[in-house]
Amino acid sequence: MTPAGRPGEFETIRRFFAPLAGGTPGALGLTDDAAFLDVEHGQQLVVTSDALVAGVHFLVDDAPADIAAKALRVNLSDLAAMGARPLAYTLAAVFDETVDEAWLDAFSAALAEDQKHFGISLVGGDTVATPGPLTLSVCAFGTVENGKGLTRSGAKPGDLVFISGTIGDAAIGLDLLKGRVVGASGEQKAYLTRRYRRPQPRCRLGPLLIGLANAAIDVSDGLVADLGHICEVSGVSAVIDVSRLPLSDGVRHLIQHKKADFARVLTGGDDYEILFTVPAGLRGMLAGLASDIGLPLTEIGCIGEEKSGSRPTLVEVVDGAGQKLKLDGQGFRHF
Amino acid sequence: MTPAGRPGEFETIRRFFAPLAGGTPGALGLTDDAAFLDVEHGQQLVVTSDALVAGVHFLVDDAPADIAAKALRVNLSDLAAMGARPLAYTLAAVFDETVDEAWLDAFSAALAEDQKHFGISLVGGDTVATPGPLTLSVCAFGTVENGKGLTRSGAKPGDLVFISGTIGDAAIGLDLLKGRVVGASGEQKAYLTRRYRRPQPRCRLGPLLIGLANAAIDVSDGLVADLGHICEVSGVSAVIDVSRLPLSDGVRHLIQHKKADFARVLTGGDDYEILFTVPAGLRGMLAGLASDIGLPLTEIGCIGEEKSGSRPTLVEVVDGAGQKLKLDGQGFRHF
Repeated sequence: MTPAGRPGEFETIRRFFAPLAGGTPGALGLTDDAAFLDVEHGQQLVVTSDALVAGVHFLVDDAPADIAAKALRVNLSDLAAMGARPLAYTLAAVFDETVDEAWLDAFSAALAEDQKHFGISLVGGDTVATPGPLTLSVCAFGTVENGKGLTRSGAKPGDLVFISGTIGDAAIGLDLLKGRVVGASGEQKAYLTRRYRRPQPRCRLGPLLIGLANAAIDVSDGLVADLGHICEVSGVSAVIDVSRLPLSDGVRHLIQHKKADFARVLTGGDDYEILFTVPAGLRGMLAGLASDIGLPLTEIGCIGEEKSGSRPTLVEVVDGAGQKLKLDGQGFRHF
Repeated sequence: MTPAGRPGEFETIRRFFAPLAGGTPGALGLTDDAAFLDVEHGQQLVVTSDALVAGVHFLVDDAPADIAAKALRVNLSDLAAMGARPLAYTLAAVFDETVDEAWLDAFSAALAEDQKHFGISLVGGDTVATPGPLTLSVCAFGTVENGKGLTRSGAKPGDLVFISGTIGDAAIGLDLLKGRVVGASGEQKAYLTRRYRRPQPRCRLGPLLIGLANAAIDVSDGLVADLGHICEVSGVSAVIDVSRLPLSDGVRHLIQHKKADFARVLTGGDDYEILFTVPAGLRGMLAGLASDIGLPLTEIGCIGEEKSGSRPTLVEVVDGAGQKLKLDGQGFRHF
């Protein structure tokens, strides 16, 4: 046992992590330093990596099960936004002194649950100790048909801009946890804080957007910022109509009662919904797809003319009457 | 700029990391959250991930170029030990406040140099800030012909045990840096500390061992511990003859003059040499291979009978006369 009451590296791997690799022969039961991954002929591997630091990307007192789910899911969200199907992941776990056996039990059980749900398994990684905050770095692998993967760079003038699910929940959920926003019902608070702690990667939607979407990204930095990423890389501009943004009941309630600022919906991050653009002719298919998978897909704007520049100048935000709004320190206002 | 005098996340990626992805179309110039990797038909992907924490895996005042090289090379060493050829890597960089523009300049320049030398390129990752120590998590990808990769599990009774290069340099180099060992010449100290700070992954040797070696591992935990890993997973025992261990001039000098303890050669880690077992009939080929690639490959022992158990009991250490030695707190002694 380490001074923290945590089993040593090899026992930690054997007891808590090797069982998570059971389903993948190439993971070699985590007894080797590396794993073998098979990629079917005609498929490309999609690789993504996100690191999470306690106190920065999750709260230091978040439950180990929430931390596990978030570390894995933010990576699954990246795969989904590229249209990839999950295959495997590695975990570089940098444990601080708060990590003990009970923590590892809950953490690995949550990973096991998510692995089953999302069809992915652990194939390798590393377990080290740090005097600093708990840090988790996941590298996730998915597959996509050769050359078919979605990127941020294909948005075209005239495309419609869609978003999955509802937006603003995670940022306002975090505000509720931090006490910066008050006045939500118990049920609303539970829903919104869970949206922050347990993002729902849109793994089913992503691969279905192949052949439909010209560009896609998952919303991690915020709606306007992430649409800005698409615009910058695609060399286009965009307009968002705030009256169309899909809001959960909780967020709608808090904004209507002036408990929360509408700007958080546009600039808050961590929703992990998929923001994508499609040619204008595909409105009907999108409605059908939303119905098929039981996930709202809402048209919130369109892609404008070709334009180069930095992100903030590429995305215009308008109200329901088409009047431009601008963001300043106090939120969004009319020009 | 961040408070630390470091450019923001996007500028850091654009200025320092995107150029490292230039050679790989699937990296999308690091403008997306994920990258596409092509794996040739008939090849398997080999995946490894190692995390390094400042003050644990390198010294906090190590030069950024050394830190960059170590983070990449310990992963390349894992690939080499599996017989894989380097393909690409991701870097999750968790920066502390000591990281500024000058640091990033030197760090990325060293990565660029190693990329060229080892034939690998950056395809993605993440850049986040931490209040704790600088932490770097690399996930490296290599390729190997389907089913041909080396593992730890194939060692057979009668196999010869070989090690590449020299052993004990990195541990005694670290001891010199920490002032735990003194009395090396300036040249010896420079050589041994560089062996600690800049491991030389045996990327050329690894793939050439396919078809020769029954089991392989890179020495990161220490010679006895890592041979123990092979024995445990292969279900065999092993004997090492300490009189055969290949030592550098510096280590030999320090041990002869009783400045350094011989036990460090057997138990110190971080050498990143390849430890492997081959059928007894292949001694001549190994000698030829060593000559072809200009890297000593030294026979240091053999694999004994089939045995199950925990690592420490599986590896026996003997002197040149075949007398058993045992390790205790003061180092190795005769029984």
